[in-house]
This record gives sequence, C-alpha cells and structure tokens, in this order.
Amino acid sequence: MTVIKTEIRRGAYFDSAVLMKLQRSLLELPGVQDTGVVMGTDSNKDLLEHIHLLSPEAATARPDDLIIVVSAEDAAAASAAVGKVDELLAARRPSEDTTRRPKSTEQAFKMLPEAGWILISVAGRYAAAVARQALRDGKHVFLFSDNVLVEEEIALKQQASAAGLLVMGPDCGTALIGGIGLGFANQVRRGPIGVVAAAGTGLQHVTARIHQLGGGITHGIGTGGRDLSEKVGAVTFRQALDLLSRDPQTKVIVLVSKPPAPGVAEEVLKLARQAGKPVVVNFIARANSATRLDNLYFVNTLDAAAELAVELAEKGTGEAEPELGLERFAPGQKYLRGLYSGGTLAYEAQHILTGYLPRVYANAPINKELKMPNANISQEHCIVDLGEDEFTQGRLHPMMDNDLRIRRLLEEADDPSVAVIMLDVVIGFGSHPDPASELAPAIEKARAKAQAAGRFLEVAAVVTGTDTDPQVLQSQIDQLKAAGVWVSTSNEAVVRYVGRLLRALEGAAMVKSPFKPVDLASLEKPLAAVNVGLESFAENLAAQGAPVVQVDWRPPAGGNERLAAILERMKQS
Amino acid sequence: MTVIKTEIRRGAYFDSAVLMKLQRSLLELPGVQDTGVVMGTDSNKDLLEHIHLLSPEAATARPDDLIIVVSAEDAAAASAAVGKVDELLAARRPSEDTTRRPKSTEQAFKMLPEAGWILISVAGRYAAAVARQALRDGKHVFLFSDNVLVEEEIALKQQASAAGLLVMGPDCGTALIGGIGLGFANQVRRGPIGVVAAAGTGLQHVTARIHQLGGGITHGIGTGGRDLSEKVGAVTFRQALDLLSRDPQTKVIVLVSKPPAPGVAEEVLKLARQAGKPVVVNFIARANSATRLDNLYFVNTLDAAAELAVELAEKGTGEAEPELGLERFAPGQKYLRGLYSGGTLAYEAQHILTGYLPRVYANAPINKELKMPNANISQEHCIVDLGEDEFTQGRLHPMMDNDLRIRRLLEEADDPSVAVIMLDVVIGFGSHPDPASELAPAIEKARAKAQAAGRFLEVAAVVTGTDTDPQVLQSQIDQLKAAGVWVSTSNEAVVRYVGRLLRALEGAAMVKSPFKPVDLASLEKPLAAVNVGLESFAENLAAQGAPVVQVDWRPPAGGNERLAAILERMKQS
Repeated sequence: MTVIKTEIRRGAYFDSAVLMKLQRSLLELPGVQDTGVVMGTDSNKDLLEHIHLLSPEAATARPDDLIIVVSAEDAAAASAAVGKVDELLAARRPSEDTTRRPKSTEQAFKMLPEAGWILISVAGRYAAAVARQALRDGKHVFLFSDNVLVEEEIALKQQASAAGLLVMGPDCGTALIGGIGLGFANQVRRGPIGVVAAAGTGLQHVTARIHQLGGGITHGIGTGGRDLSEKVGAVTFRQALDLLSRDPQTKVIVLVSKPPAPGVAEEVLKLARQAGKPVVVNFIARANSATRLDNLYFVNTLDAAAELAVELAEKGTGEAEPELGLERFAPGQKYLRGLYSGGTLAYEAQHILTGYLPRVYANAPINKELKMPNANISQEHCIVDLGEDEFTQGRLHPMMDNDLRIRRLLEEADDPSVAVIMLDVVIGFGSHPDPASELAPAIEKARAKAQAAGRFLEVAAVVTGTDTDPQVLQSQIDQLKAAGVWVSTSNEAVVRYVGRLLRALEGAAMVKSPFKPVDLASLEKPLAAVNVGLESFAENLAAQGAPVVQVDWRPPAGGNERLAAILERMKQS
Repeated sequence: MTVIKTEIRRGAYFDSAVLMKLQRSLLELPGVQDTGVVMGTDSNKDLLEHIHLLSPEAATARPDDLIIVVSAEDAAAASAAVGKVDELLAARRPSEDTTRRPKSTEQAFKMLPEAGWILISVAGRYAAAVARQALRDGKHVFLFSDNVLVEEEIALKQQASAAGLLVMGPDCGTALIGGIGLGFANQVRRGPIGVVAAAGTGLQHVTARIHQLGGGITHGIGTGGRDLSEKVGAVTFRQALDLLSRDPQTKVIVLVSKPPAPGVAEEVLKLARQAGKPVVVNFIARANSATRLDNLYFVNTLDAAAELAVELAEKGTGEAEPELGLERFAPGQKYLRGLYSGGTLAYEAQHILTGYLPRVYANAPINKELKMPNANISQEHCIVDLGEDEFTQGRLHPMMDNDLRIRRLLEEADDPSVAVIMLDVVIGFGSHPDPASELAPAIEKARAKAQAAGRFLEVAAVVTGTDTDPQVLQSQIDQLKAAGVWVSTSNEAVVRYVGRLLRALEGAAMVKSPFKPVDLASLEKPLAAVNVGLESFAENLAAQGAPVVQVDWRPPAGGNERLAAILERMKQS
C-alpha cells in the first residue's frame, strides 16, 4: 500500500539545483516510489495534484514554502526518507572551497576587479535588487531569472541604458559574448555574424545552425522575451543592434524575436535599415509582404535565418548599389511620377515603394485611400496606369499607342517638384512595333526642358520582352539608354533604385539612438564575471576559461521581503 | 491664332486602331497643331479638357458618339482637316482581301473548322454576346475587351466551366498557348514552366523574365483581373491550375495575381497544394508568414517568381520527401503532443503547423484563443513549453532537469488518440550533461507501452547544438536514433515532417474541382483561331504561323443595343 508523507518548510529558500538533487537522492532511498520537492506555487501544486502527490497539507503551502512529498511502499519507508532530508541537504558539497565564496556581490567584485559582467539566476523576486546594485557598480547584467515584474525590468533598463550598460533579460536564457557562452549556450566558433535575440532558444538554435553550416559568431546578445513589448520599448534590443552596427568584426546581423509590438517593430527596423550591413530579420510568425528591403532580409524560420546569414557572410549581397548622383537635382525636386502601360507593373511598383516612401498616390491604388482624385492631375508621388479602363474606352491601349503617355511625360517635365519619371516599355506581339523609337525622343525632349529650367530629370524604365520579340529587347534598351534613361529588365531593380533615390532626396531622417552607446571594447575584452544563483553557470564559465566568482548568496533579511525592501531603500539613499 | 473645330458622329462605332490611325493622319495635315479622336466617354472628355481640346459641343457627346477635334493655325486649316475625315477612314485598307472576311463568327468558324479559339477585343458592351455564341460553338474564349459587366463575366464563366471550356478575361491582356502568344504576348521559348495569371503584364513580365533566364513556358493562361474576386470565385484560375497540374509537360507552376479575396485565396491554395509539383505563388502585396509550405513557394515580386521557377525547373526541390508510413498507426491515432524545453522552438513549431493543422493548442500559444486551459492536461493537438514560468518557479529548467518531461512523455504514450510526440533536445553549456541518456530510454519505454497496446508512437526530435558542445551533438543524435526517434538538427524539417504526417493521418480532404475538366489536348494541338476586333491580334497570330480568320465585325443591329438584345434573346431560345 502506497503511503504519502509531506513535509513543509515555511519560508525556506533553496537553489533549484539543490532541490533537484534532493529529489533524486530521495528517490534512491529504499521503498520510495516517487517524490516531489518544489516551492509551493500554485502551478507546482497543480502539478503535484496531477501526479497524485498533493496531500491536504501540501495544498496549504505558500509560494515561499518548500514542499517535500514522498510516496513510499509503507509508512516506515516514507518517514525514513523524509527524516533524511536535512542530512541530504547538508551533504551536498563536501569538497567545497568556501574561502572563494564571498557572501555579497560587492565582495565578489572586489575579489575579481576585472569582472565586467554579472550573471543573476536567483528567484525572480530577489533578482532586480541584485541587478540594480551591479548596474550601480558599472557592470553589464545577464539576468536569467524569470518572474521579474515588468516595472522592475523597465526601471533596470532605464538605469542601464543611461549608463551605457546592457541588461540582458529578465528571462534571458543565453548569450555569447566574445566567444564565451553565458547561461544556456552552445560552443560555436567565432566569425562574422552577430545575433540579437529576444528569444532564448531562438538564439541558441540560430547560432548552433550557423556553426553547423560552417559560419561563426561575433556576439549573440539576448534581451529577454518582453524587451520588444510596447512597455519596455526594445531598449536592450536597440542597444545591441547599435552595438553590432558599430562593430567592425560583425559583417552580418541577425535579429530574432516573436512578433514585436507593431510600433516597436517599426523603430527597430528603422534602426536596422541604417546598420550599414545586411540584417536578416526573423520576427517569427510576423507576416511580411516583402522578402527584401535594401539591407533588410526577411525570413520566417530560424533555420532560414541561419542559412541566409551564412550565405551573406560568405558571398556578400552580390550587388553594388547604383550611384544616386543626388547633386544633379535642383532644390525642390522630390517627387516621382510613374507613367505605366502595364497595370501589374504599376501595382508591383506601388507595393515595393511602400518600403521607401510614406505614400504614393495612384489611379489604380493598392489601397483606396491613395486613389488620385483625378488621374489626369498628378499629385506628390503618384503612379498612373494609362492602361486602366478610364483611359482605354474607345481608345487604344498605351502599349500600342504612345500618344497619351508622351503628352503626360512632357507635362510632368515642366513640374519643378518632379525629380523622377518611372515608366515601363512592354514589347512583344500586340504592342507598338517600336515603342522606344517614339518614347526615347520624347524623353530626350522632356529632359532637355527640365535642364533648360535648371533642373535634372531622372527617367527610369523597365523593359519587358525577349530577344526574339519582333521589336527586339536589346534594341529597345539601347534606344532608351541613348536617351539617358536608367534601364533594367527587372521591375524590382528599377523600383528599388527609384525608391532609394527619392528617399535620399527627401533626406530620410537618420534615427538617433536615445541611449548612451555601449562601449564596444567592454564586449571585446576577455570576459570575467560574478555569478549569483545557479552554480552550474559559474562552472560553465570556468570550463570556458573565463574567470568567475560565485557568490554564496542568501535572500536578504533571511527571506523576509518587507525587511529586505527597507534595507534596499536605505542602501539607495 | 489657334482655332478648334469639333465634329460629333452620333452612335458611330469604330475600332480603336482605326481611331488612332485617323488621329495620326489628321495631325500630318497642313496647319494642324493637335487632334483628339475618341469615343465620348466621361473620362475621354476629361482628358480632352485637360489638353484644352474640349469644345462645348464635344462636352455634350455621349459614350456612343465619336468626337473628332482638330486644333489648327486658322479656321481654314481646321475645316479642311475635318473635311478629310471620311476620305481618311475610307482609305485605310487599300489592299484588303475582302473575300477572307466573313461578317459573322459563325461564318468564320465554318471557314476555319479547326479553330478551337476565339479572340474578342470589340468594345466591352458588345463582347459578352460574341463570347456567349463562341462558347455555344465549343470554343475557348480569349476576351481582351474591358468594360464588361461582372454579371456577364460570371454568366460566361459558368457556361464555360460547365462545358470544359476556358474564358480568359474579360480584360485579359495576354496568354501563351502551346507557344503561341494571344493578345499582347512575348515570344518566349517553350519549356517546363506553366503560368496562371490574373494580371496581364504580370504574365508578360514573368514569362519574359523566365525566357531571359534561360527557362521556357508550357502554357501561360490569363484569367482577367476580376477572376479572383469573391463574386467570380476564381473559376478560370482554378480551371487553369487544374489543367497545368494534369499537364505532364509542366514541371513547375507559377501563380500571379494581385491579392485575391481571402476566401478565394484559400480555395486556390488548397488546390495548388495538391498539384503534385512545385507551385510558386506571387499574390503581389499579400503578406506571407511563410516562404514555403510543402510544394508551395511564396514570393513577393514578379522577378523573384521567375527566378525561383527557373531554379526549381532546373534543379528540382533538392529534397526527397520522407516516407510517412501511415500503415503503422492504429485507427484513432491522430494527435500531436509537443513537449518542448525551448520556448522559441515551441513557438516556431506552432507557427509552422498553422500551414498543416486547423488548430494546435499550447500553454504559450501564438494566439490566445488557443491557450490550453490547463498546461498539465493535453487536448487534441497541443504543444507544451515546459520552460514556461508556470513550470520553473522553484524548479530547474527542463533543459537541466528531464524529470517533468519524462513523466509527461510516458503519460502521453498511454493516450490512444496520440500519434506523434514532438520534442526538442537543446544541448550546450547550462544544459543537462547528457540529456539523451535519460530521454532515449524513456522514449523507448513510451514506444513499448504504445506497442503493447497495439499502437505505433512516432517520436520526432530536433537537436540543437554543436560538435564542440560538452554533450557532443552527434552523440545525442545517435542515442535518440537508436531509440527509433526521427531526428533532425533543423526545427523546420522536424515540424514539416510532423505536419505532413498528421495531415495525412487526418486524411486531409482532397479538393475536387467542381468544373468539367478542360481537355488538355485542346491546348496542345496547333492553335487556330477566329479574331473579332483589333486586327493586329489576327496579324500577330498569322506572324506566328497560326491559322486565323478575321471577322469583319459590326455592332449588331447597327449599334442599337435594345434591338441587339432582342435579337440575342431570340437566338438563345
């Protein structure tokens, strides 16, 4: 007959590793069938109930209480096991060198003055106070503890960012700093890829995959899962992105997170856009309407992020960005006028431009708020599809008849606010027998008109067709190029060039980081740290050759939180 | 002094090509400065006004009226030009062989009995009647005309799909059938890629790019831009997709459209999923939260669609799909239980599974309606992240302590509805020193329990780590494989395998096309057609070596639409 015996230790604090070892030792005792050794939180009690170990006594335990449950063959075995608890707890570290064990973080930092880091994995309710003290001492914080209040997180990150320090976490599972893994971390080679992640196993999986694929990591910076929420505002994420942007060793950056709050995502992407290097973005499960936006590459899985980062680091982006020649334009020239004959090309152009310009009007707009009130009258940036029904009733399609487009082109050239005309030339059966022969002279005329008025008019064109088309692709390209047109057979290439040009003409504001920059050198110098909490974290640092001091930490005021709070307030004042 | 002279021809019908030629001829007359020759629609009148050619007289014209406006140096020149209109219209075809010009489509099909197609480009208000008659005659319809009512489109497509015929359009600019271009089309080589497009220049641009990249096309089927609307319901798009799926020459399919109505997109993608070949999907501007879903590949630009299609046609998908071994499972086994230690891996798994399963519950769900009421009690498909706060208060993280996961694993193995257990094994510093040494025996035990009960339990695991981690990646993989686990280092690969397996176990219903299948042979036999409308379309077919008869079409009942409607009703009865 199974007998269950429960013991509750009121207000006791134990390291979770100690509890696991105790549970395993109890299981090995004679007659013991199962054991549970957990703090008395509601979820732990649910769990004990689920595995039939919750006695009425255990049900009354509070979160601060330690519950020890033993189920055994008989009452004697159960009592014997519970009677061994103190002995087992005492026996846990026979060979410990207690002289290396300072009782406080202050003492620890005195023992290891080169330590720039603290690792904190004590229970969440004690963690913020430990972190706060370390920030005051000028240390970066790796905060593994979970169950830290979001208000505490905000306050800690405010304190840190004003001082040029990082708070990775709370609930930050992993980081790789200069080749050294903190918390849970894989041993990966160093290399040109930097990672910022608000997702612990996300960072582990991506860095491990990069290593498996032959790549390597400069730094992998964790931020904690809440960092990209509206409330926290991506403080650590932005600090880390800024840091890796400045780091000359980092050639490619990878960003990993669950979908951020929308406004926060915008801010982060603005910053990423000016990183000056490729940034692979994996906001898992966030829908993307583009896979590429200049230096940003959007992917949807961790594996894809790793693969693309390795490829970009090895081969580069494979493109030289075209020169923009901004100096050619006169002040006030800033608008795009798109004059399309192909509706789909016009639509795709609008779609791609959403990544570059705040709004582009159109007669066939991608969303109806952007509809031009009158397709004959251009306004701001706009794209006119001259093949829309309104232009083709009782009239030939603009692929056959260039008349309307040429009239409009010459009209746009007179507008001093216009900088760029973008158009398509679609050849093939059905189209005009030689459209460039009419368009190229008109474009030359338009450019000359602008030049006469002291302006420069850029004309960019996509040519759609083949070498076997009656009009011959290359002949069309040559005629347009001779008229000074920027030509490509890729609509995407044309639109991205025009997008970059207009964005530069508008003088797209650089986002300035509101934080004191984190000193890059503080990540590059050999890592040394103080560890508070899970001893295995200190052991792992030592195994990687990083100097570490383990603090023999106990809850302040013996776990009495009211008293602890009073003590901390006294310290701050 | 500029003089403007206007002439209105009431109720006159002219082919738009004729009007363009007239306009150009008038421009060449002495003293003429500008001309406008258009039907009197509101948008054409707006346009005349915009270019300062709209006289008060022209402003009164109705859509059926032809407006001829001439601006000239003086009244004499203007009058002389307008006086020439009849002569210019009469002179337009001196060398025409009128014996080849039947007056009706019926006569035309008698002259060219092998013609399986009709091309229609007459004014929209006349087009549906012509199409209706051709469908009755068993012909596929290429309907270039725009300004056709959506109700007409629905009726035509209903008629066509019941008869195994295609109506491409209205407003279908282009098609490529067996190497022959219809309407506006580029000359592209034949090859293994089939395209379906609700976007005219989309089809042209994609096929031209495929040709430029060295690829080729089986068929390019246009549907008209409205086909994927809720009202029309993608009738032609689905017929075409079904056709290309059955076509053994087509190895890769490309789908191009502006974003379809959401329900319609779902239907189309369901059908595409069972195509049995790779399908590249470009629903321009539609946001995708995945770039891949089994045989579906999502891209966002026409250029990317072309590039990927050529790559897939040349190299294949580069993967052999793993065998599912469905016969191993007992009836009733259908559910997934995910037991994760890594939160991000669990989250990504849920995200990827949205493409496979209607719903997957979780304790940390990707959307809150899918939250498990109690994380200790599994329900249907569910994924439990054992590293969530609720499991780690005063307890070690499951990466360190396998106890909780092993308990749960054995419990799930007893559930007769469970088919698959999916889990992660994350190694590295901080993690358990040899997790597989505890997990593998537990998995063997779980599988044995299921087997003893006459069931088969599939266990699939992602292992995250490196060869230099203390636990050694390969050692973990080997131990798990020895326990019969399906293992990969890619989370995506594991989840996709599991997704496919569960989808197959649920017996995901095949979508049956509700339409009479279009006969593949009708597209493969040498194309011959009757053309009604723009003569250049007939000329282009002839230039491509396709037999064609041009109909000398005039509006029925001399353009009197009431009378024409009565005549058509008489014909139908």
